[in-house]
Amino acid sequence: MALICTGTIGIDTVYTPHGHREKILGGSCTYFAAAASFYGPVRIVAAAGDDFPAEFHKTLKSFAGIDTTGLEIRKGSKTFAWGGKYLENMNSRETLFTELGVLGERPPEVPAAFADSQYIFLANSHPGVQLGMLNSLPKRRFAVADTMDLWINIARAELDLLLTKIDGLVLNYDEAELLTGKSNTVAAARAILHMGPKFVVVKKGEHGCLLVHKDGIAALPAYPTETVIDPTGAGDSFAGGMMGHIASHGMKTSQATSFNVLRESLAHGTVIASFNIESFSLDRLSKLTRAELDKRYAEYVSMVRV
Amino acid sequence: MALICTGTIGIDTVYTPHGHREKILGGSCTYFAAAASFYGPVRIVAAAGDDFPAEFHKTLKSFAGIDTTGLEIRKGSKTFAWGGKYLENMNSRETLFTELGVLGERPPEVPAAFADSQYIFLANSHPGVQLGMLNSLPKRRFAVADTMDLWINIARAELDLLLTKIDGLVLNYDEAELLTGKSNTVAAARAILHMGPKFVVVKKGEHGCLLVHKDGIAALPAYPTETVIDPTGAGDSFAGGMMGHIASHGMKTSQATSFNVLRESLAHGTVIASFNIESFSLDRLSKLTRAELDKRYAEYVSMVRV
Repeated sequence: MALICTGTIGIDTVYTPHGHREKILGGSCTYFAAAASFYGPVRIVAAAGDDFPAEFHKTLKSFAGIDTTGLEIRKGSKTFAWGGKYLENMNSRETLFTELGVLGERPPEVPAAFADSQYIFLANSHPGVQLGMLNSLPKRRFAVADTMDLWINIARAELDLLLTKIDGLVLNYDEAELLTGKSNTVAAARAILHMGPKFVVVKKGEHGCLLVHKDGIAALPAYPTETVIDPTGAGDSFAGGMMGHIASHGMKTSQATSFNVLRESLAHGTVIASFNIESFSLDRLSKLTRAELDKRYAEYVSMVRV
Repeated sequence: MALICTGTIGIDTVYTPHGHREKILGGSCTYFAAAASFYGPVRIVAAAGDDFPAEFHKTLKSFAGIDTTGLEIRKGSKTFAWGGKYLENMNSRETLFTELGVLGERPPEVPAAFADSQYIFLANSHPGVQLGMLNSLPKRRFAVADTMDLWINIARAELDLLLTKIDGLVLNYDEAELLTGKSNTVAAARAILHMGPKFVVVKKGEHGCLLVHKDGIAALPAYPTETVIDPTGAGDSFAGGMMGHIASHGMKTSQATSFNVLRESLAHGTVIASFNIESFSLDRLSKLTRAELDKRYAEYVSMVRV
């Protein structure tokens, strides 16, 4: 069933304690789609400038499941570029530069061929843009959005409206605190449930994630790994595994938003994200095999069982 | 089967964002024993001064399983006192004062009646003292120690020796990093396995714990709770639930140190610690019923299952 992701495609420069890479393929749509493609087809809606390297396009197309029809290349515009540096423990990063490029222009359009999409992931962007995307997808069964501190601070009214229209919100624990004023993660997530969504997923990086839902709370640890080369895209590949799992089963809204299904989908997200962070850009996911993914998923499920 | 804990009994003053309490019953032995007593009998070896309030003694004795024969009250000495303040997010605390009292004197003695103890928890203290305690318990089947940054920094030789003589080490994630120089938690714990113990439990507070063992890694989230009134004693009550579970089944060394048994024991530790932090001192554990404990354990197991 048709899964779609709207977000960014970018050119990243990343410094980590393990080395650095300049001008590599990045962006929320990129990581989401690469991860989701292991579960089934995924459509992307994003814009790039005419400086977007042909090899990046080729990399995206190398994932059989990714449909790049909605990747708009704009003449005379520049691709979004981001530079970041991870600190020693890999949990914190600082932004070195942000060149908005096309992100400062009009949002990309949803191609007519994508209008029947049913599973929607609105990667982090201005909630006004997210609302516009959502409204252009009338066949939606299941919509999940990500957000960030910037929008909580400067676009609260649009974000509040968005929260009443989506099934689930995915965000970091510090953003959950900022959105609600509650420093306890569980209390913050419960407060967000009162703002509209049926469930909230709080991402805690190496400490895993928390699902808060009217029918319960699930806490999933991250896959414990010694190989953390570049955490960039962990959250988006996590969302890609989660949504990919749900879309691939063609679930109805009631099923997709049920507690047990969501918990299982988060395990898929956790495992595919653990591969993503083993290398820069899509280097690891490009080489990942279905057998490796299945093996680690089984290992993870056994690891968290009591 | 006989479970014993050596450590501190103290008088705490605690400030948290939820209020503060002065001169309340605290100490590693206190929290460990109260938690372990829900599983079976537990012996404590600790010293206090003649300022130790009679009501604290009464509180300890109110837990049917706690044997206070090894609580040495020293005439003319002062009880260990500690004051601490938790910051807003409850994950960090600062020490306001430490009055060593009896902790600056000779260590308490293991009573002859306790010499047959088989399950040993060496709560945080100087590794030289921990080694002495261990040597006076020749019937031991299963010994676990806790440690802290201070001993890693100033008593490394004794700590290294201790690590070769215990079955398991329990410590915080930042202490694991300090002990090994490795900032990745899994890598740090694996490095500690090479120093002697059969398993390492890394405590991560609200983010749960990690078990690293030659046969695998288990990651357990904390019980997600909105009620965190005072985190003091979380680690020791966690160890009490873990060791209490193992001792109550009279396990042999091979069984107690097996991966699956340890994983299950950590779930018991996680759940009883979640009650402990719901109030100051032993206020919550004093009121805890077996039915409440069983109910939350079942809930936790269902919560972490995928």
